[in-house]
Amino acid sequence: MEPSPGLMVTPPGLVVTPPGVMEAPPGYGSGSRDALHLPSDDDDDEMVDIAGATLDFSATDDVPPLSSGDFEEYSSSSSSSRAAGMNGSGPSKLVDPLEDLLPGLGTYEDFNTIDWVREKSKDRDRHREITNKSRQSTVALLHSISDAFSGWLLMLLVGLMSGALAGGIDIAAHWLTDLKGGVCLVGFWFNHEHCCWTSNETTFQERDRCPQWQSWAELITGTAEGPFPYIVNYLMYIFWALLFAFLAVTLVRAFAPYACGSGIPEIKTILSGFIIRGYLGKWTLIIKTITLVLAVSSGLSLGKEGPLVHVACCCANILCHLFTKYRKNEAKRREVLSAAAAVGVSVAFGAPIGGVLFSLEEVSYYFPLKTLWRSFFAALVAAFTLRSINPFGNSRLVLFYVEFHAPWHLVELGPFILLGIFGGLWGALFIKANIAWCRIRKSSRLGHYPVIEVLVVAAVTAVIAYPNSYTRMSGAELISELFNDCSLLDSSQLCGYKQPVNMSETAAGNSLADRPAGEGLLTALWQLALALIFKMLITVITFGMKVPSGLFIPSMAVGAIAGRLLGVGMEQLAYYNHDWFVFKGWCTPGADCITPGLYAMVGAAACLGGVTRMTVSLVVIMFELTGGLEYIVPLMAATMTSKWVADAFGREGIYEAHIRLNGYPFLEPKEEFGHSSLAVDVMRPRRGDSALAVLTQEGMTLGEVETLVESTRYSGFPVVVSQESQRLVGFVLRRDLLISIDNARKRQDGIVSASQVVFTEHTPAQPPEGPPPLRLRAIMDLSPFTVTDHTPMDITVDIFRKLGLRQCLVTHNGRLLGIITKKDVLKHMAQIAHRDPDSILFN
Amino acid sequence: MEPSPGLMVTPPGLVVTPPGVMEAPPGYGSGSRDALHLPSDDDDDEMVDIAGATLDFSATDDVPPLSSGDFEEYSSSSSSSRAAGMNGSGPSKLVDPLEDLLPGLGTYEDFNTIDWVREKSKDRDRHREITNKSRQSTVALLHSISDAFSGWLLMLLVGLMSGALAGGIDIAAHWLTDLKGGVCLVGFWFNHEHCCWTSNETTFQERDRCPQWQSWAELITGTAEGPFPYIVNYLMYIFWALLFAFLAVTLVRAFAPYACGSGIPEIKTILSGFIIRGYLGKWTLIIKTITLVLAVSSGLSLGKEGPLVHVACCCANILCHLFTKYRKNEAKRREVLSAAAAVGVSVAFGAPIGGVLFSLEEVSYYFPLKTLWRSFFAALVAAFTLRSINPFGNSRLVLFYVEFHAPWHLVELGPFILLGIFGGLWGALFIKANIAWCRIRKSSRLGHYPVIEVLVVAAVTAVIAYPNSYTRMSGAELISELFNDCSLLDSSQLCGYKQPVNMSETAAGNSLADRPAGEGLLTALWQLALALIFKMLITVITFGMKVPSGLFIPSMAVGAIAGRLLGVGMEQLAYYNHDWFVFKGWCTPGADCITPGLYAMVGAAACLGGVTRMTVSLVVIMFELTGGLEYIVPLMAATMTSKWVADAFGREGIYEAHIRLNGYPFLEPKEEFGHSSLAVDVMRPRRGDSALAVLTQEGMTLGEVETLVESTRYSGFPVVVSQESQRLVGFVLRRDLLISIDNARKRQDGIVSASQVVFTEHTPAQPPEGPPPLRLRAIMDLSPFTVTDHTPMDITVDIFRKLGLRQCLVTHNGRLLGIITKKDVLKHMAQIAHRDPDSILFN
Repeated sequence: MEPSPGLMVTPPGLVVTPPGVMEAPPGYGSGSRDALHLPSDDDDDEMVDIAGATLDFSATDDVPPLSSGDFEEYSSSSSSSRAAGMNGSGPSKLVDPLEDLLPGLGTYEDFNTIDWVREKSKDRDRHREITNKSRQSTVALLHSISDAFSGWLLMLLVGLMSGALAGGIDIAAHWLTDLKGGVCLVGFWFNHEHCCWTSNETTFQERDRCPQWQSWAELITGTAEGPFPYIVNYLMYIFWALLFAFLAVTLVRAFAPYACGSGIPEIKTILSGFIIRGYLGKWTLIIKTITLVLAVSSGLSLGKEGPLVHVACCCANILCHLFTKYRKNEAKRREVLSAAAAVGVSVAFGAPIGGVLFSLEEVSYYFPLKTLWRSFFAALVAAFTLRSINPFGNSRLVLFYVEFHAPWHLVELGPFILLGIFGGLWGALFIKANIAWCRIRKSSRLGHYPVIEVLVVAAVTAVIAYPNSYTRMSGAELISELFNDCSLLDSSQLCGYKQPVNMSETAAGNSLADRPAGEGLLTALWQLALALIFKMLITVITFGMKVPSGLFIPSMAVGAIAGRLLGVGMEQLAYYNHDWFVFKGWCTPGADCITPGLYAMVGAAACLGGVTRMTVSLVVIMFELTGGLEYIVPLMAATMTSKWVADAFGREGIYEAHIRLNGYPFLEPKEEFGHSSLAVDVMRPRRGDSALAVLTQEGMTLGEVETLVESTRYSGFPVVVSQESQRLVGFVLRRDLLISIDNARKRQDGIVSASQVVFTEHTPAQPPEGPPPLRLRAIMDLSPFTVTDHTPMDITVDIFRKLGLRQCLVTHNGRLLGIITKKDVLKHMAQIAHRDPDSILFN
Repeated sequence: MEPSPGLMVTPPGLVVTPPGVMEAPPGYGSGSRDALHLPSDDDDDEMVDIAGATLDFSATDDVPPLSSGDFEEYSSSSSSSRAAGMNGSGPSKLVDPLEDLLPGLGTYEDFNTIDWVREKSKDRDRHREITNKSRQSTVALLHSISDAFSGWLLMLLVGLMSGALAGGIDIAAHWLTDLKGGVCLVGFWFNHEHCCWTSNETTFQERDRCPQWQSWAELITGTAEGPFPYIVNYLMYIFWALLFAFLAVTLVRAFAPYACGSGIPEIKTILSGFIIRGYLGKWTLIIKTITLVLAVSSGLSLGKEGPLVHVACCCANILCHLFTKYRKNEAKRREVLSAAAAVGVSVAFGAPIGGVLFSLEEVSYYFPLKTLWRSFFAALVAAFTLRSINPFGNSRLVLFYVEFHAPWHLVELGPFILLGIFGGLWGALFIKANIAWCRIRKSSRLGHYPVIEVLVVAAVTAVIAYPNSYTRMSGAELISELFNDCSLLDSSQLCGYKQPVNMSETAAGNSLADRPAGEGLLTALWQLALALIFKMLITVITFGMKVPSGLFIPSMAVGAIAGRLLGVGMEQLAYYNHDWFVFKGWCTPGADCITPGLYAMVGAAACLGGVTRMTVSLVVIMFELTGGLEYIVPLMAATMTSKWVADAFGREGIYEAHIRLNGYPFLEPKEEFGHSSLAVDVMRPRRGDSALAVLTQEGMTLGEVETLVESTRYSGFPVVVSQESQRLVGFVLRRDLLISIDNARKRQDGIVSASQVVFTEHTPAQPPEGPPPLRLRAIMDLSPFTVTDHTPMDITVDIFRKLGLRQCLVTHNGRLLGIITKKDVLKHMAQIAHRDPDSILFN
């Protein structure tokens, strides 16, 4: 898939002219100053604008963008208070009269990287202020306490909302999926299972047959048997599948382009400190929830687990607006989003601990311990909310509940490792094929017809899937059936074993003993083999279409099929050859020595591991499904093998591959930087380029500053003592500079182009007849990060990662030499890996 | 306890004159240059020397300290290669002829902080070199592959060794504990349970009675009943307790002073980047293993869980010596130690996932994802090794296996939260009391008589504990019994319920229905209440004595007793008042509505949480014990309440409190720095102090440099362009400087006091008749970290934490202004918290 094609296709300005190093988006620096007064704290509802539609929902936001009451608190926590605190010049808000009234200072452009240090520092300032105030009055004390607990309250709300949404999605998807096959006569809103609950005529053997539930053929032709009703059912199945797919893709196209895909690559990027306005907004939430149900029900080879993470993150982002602490701070909000990712997996699988580890291992960038506790809390709340909704109707929390009876034997580690190798190979192959397909989609005309693409794939899926019962059922059902251990009474085809002729040979007490395969099982095996091939191919082209699509269920399905096939094979091998060396001693005739369901589970874990490169979280999720430490070793062996095998073909998981495909500025925290380059090799300006554009702390006029800003497209400028000495004083962001100048020209008397711009503490002597100077020290970052030119890039990359920097200045013997931005780092890394450095698109 | 009293008492030089900021240990700078050639990579066996004993085991080490084959590889990965790579002057090893032969460059003094950035950079250089070489030959390729897998192999070995040791400790402790009561006639090496297994006369009701097992009274007096045998048993119990305690404390005193205490505070400090030679050495391992068994068996109120973490870390550290990659690199070794901490908890409780989270949440400082995977692997291996040893004889992995049958009701959250409050209060109180007691021990004469202290406490414990059966049994047994759910057949006193008179009232099928308390239960409750008070008091003085002592089991025991008392109370309340509003609807007569065992478990978690401030890992450990998500909510509610309540009295857990007590340089990663000071307020020199001691990159003679180094005690010196400009060039460590000068004087011709010392790339023109210059650029760190004087301390602290810095230089407008060391940061933080800044003892 192409996780956010809206990004790539709809706003062509961003794709056709990818902005260069530290360059502001085109059209921004050249006079469009009025755009500066865009609302600064509702990042979510401008998306529709970006996506090219005409709706603008930002007016519906509860906080008017320019109300002064709103950002009073805000700007006092901006860098101005720090500058004031430093030189001790009275109350912190009086550094510069114009400071208090500037909206937008310290906010970010869309598709830009945040500065973690600044955000965290802002939050600490804010916290400090509340703590200081709380000593003064009871009201302030209460405010301080409520502020401290707001994080927990927010987590509670996120858990409740996500759990409820997930429950709703489960129920709706279940119903719509069943609707493809037939309808309940008692009430069309009942799903198959629910419909038959109310029936008294259901027997234990045929739980899913009851007169109230009628297939479409029964309803239309009046009969259920024969070729004609089969064709009617077939056609109805295709019709519904196409309808659901069409609705899904149309809704996504019309209302929320960001709702497509799994969302995990974008969430990873956002969590690493990137701004994508509207990606987690309310329209995305609404549309993603609806279209997820439709897409899952349409029978496409996709799952709902990844999108549930996106849904949970949307909930979290929207709920963040209720709390100033989180609304105003990009870093704090990302802590909440990390927890929300855990919530998403928690509700997807009913595995709260696995969810937290998933967020930690796979998604999150900055995961302090506080977030660990809160994630865990939110994941639990969500899991219990989901359980009280009880969408599966069995009081189980987990998606696939399995209970195995037989232990595994050391010899079986062989086949488990084989499954690991299969999973790794398939994972690597899938990533390569899927990325290649996405590139074709992007570069060819195919990308222009997303609706047709979805319809064609849905039609192909439906046509091929219907005849084979294992592809006709939903992915989750399939996996559930494959994981299942066969009991004697089991009526499914997969349990079509022959009863041993001489029952006396079998240990009488062991009803689950290995048995020879019967007719039914052999048919099932053939069908499964075909299903395997089909799933492997169709998933490659499905993942990346313009519908919400998760990859967990299809990957697990592939692995589960392969595992089950191998498991049954092993079982038959052991049954017929129990005197072989490897089976001797532990697999006597009549014993239950091989559990094919366990093989399916191990295979599922291996394939999912190969695709996503998860390890610990995957094993823990599986552990939570079975609830026994017993099977951790097989799972561990398979996932580790899978990861190693897949890593041999390419170290990126599917999410990282999509991040790279989309050119997001994501600095992979797992990968070690192995090259021996130095900061001086990466920094701009390169040898031969023109000198670095710098401001001097005094001596420049407003006109000169404006010329400099307009003639370049850098998003920030170092401030130096003087052009000769090049000794660094601070760093000013383009956006802050433009806003301040704009504001000063409008509101401050006497500011003209000839005004001096000063960044020093004390205003230097001015010519008496000249205009008053414009003092801008307050918007200058007095503590820019610097490294020396000799700093090895591995250390520099480490600093960027760990501190979450956006840029870093390079000095040599105390003189400013250049600048390294996150984008420079990423370009350099791409270059080292022999990739196109221009594939990094955003700042 | 006083976790490493060996540190504080035995080497008086370190205590009496705590070294100042950046000061080298006294006696080091003043001429003792020969000590520089101490072996550099066997940190472990010098401990005995430090501890004041006369043994020196370093000669037994396998690597002779000065063999050139050993550090060839080493020095090539030191900073010299970087400097060479930068100026491109040919092969990396030829920068300075003297470079290759310097052992000790880049190593650390005992009780010093490591520089994480340098260590990690060294490892990356090493990795790079191996990767580059691997392209040249097959042997090198194989070397590269084996290098890549050595981490996993090491983990496997750590898991196996720790699991085996833990199994041995369990078996030995079980046997010795039983020996206090009696002896097995079949063979004295059998413990009570094992002894009676072989007996045919054991009945189900009295599993622990068999003729082969004789109490000491039976053996000596020939009779088991009556007051005289009771006294004989009592005396024998005291005798064994004293003997074990005496042996434990004597062994610790004589051979391994570092073996006392739980070890977790020191391991936390070591993991944060501190060097304590010998703390994880083989003598500590051997002695800790033996004395742990003795201490646990002596009946003192201590557990083996904390010390098992120490034992696992010792194993890991010793095994690290097998792999160059880990032997030579302090940062890499700490990754292994983090995993070992997980292994320790994994074998202590049989909870691998909980162990990994414990390491992540509580112990580790730097925990990259790679360590997460490896920790998990090692923890699993250890858990399965332990299980195959099967020390509990029940094939269970977990220490306390519990299985509850009844669900809990929402109303019960009330008592659970009450337990949380109790746990928090007790935790806070315990920490304060224990720290106060440790201070008394340290400052008064008590600290001089550790053997007598241990014997007195052991005697008091034995005398008081014996009459009460709940204190007589070991802590683990007690907890196990308290966690247990009563079945109808249970013969223990705790299950001494009356059978309801009218059985018809009881639902016949529910054999576990609530019943009224009988005689036995009431006695048990009294005994438990007394045991609670006793445990609460004795644990305060026990934790911190000179024997290995863990805190998990005593804390859990206190909580479990309180919980069980409350649980039985609730049960009786519900039984007699089932028509009360709160019980109505869910607690009908004859139903099994209250499970006292669950209350015990929740109480145990609450108390452990209050003492250690663990949350997620604690809940997960408990989850692994029960294996059901069902009880996570009560556990979560109790641990969270406990943490909040305890935090209200003081934010430190017991381990942090002990770290502070001992003055270790530990920068707490959890705590936010809330003060608004700037770097300029913290840096040295302070206003009024003499100027910062700096070297200039050229123009100083060797004599001047030596005078500067000898007249100060700083452990590093910035190098500047010139005294006038103060523009920073690099940073040189005192240790490296001394080693290099010493070496040059010995081996390089013509180096005299008048020689110029140059740090520049190109040697400046020398007077033709003068001595040759000494070029030291290779030992200079060309990329020292700098912050500006305006950088807020919260950001600076963040940088120190995240990058693991040892020092950071402060500049103002490009000029060097001062230096901030980790110790300065810690002192500043102590000052802010109104503590004595001189409590920070080490660099």
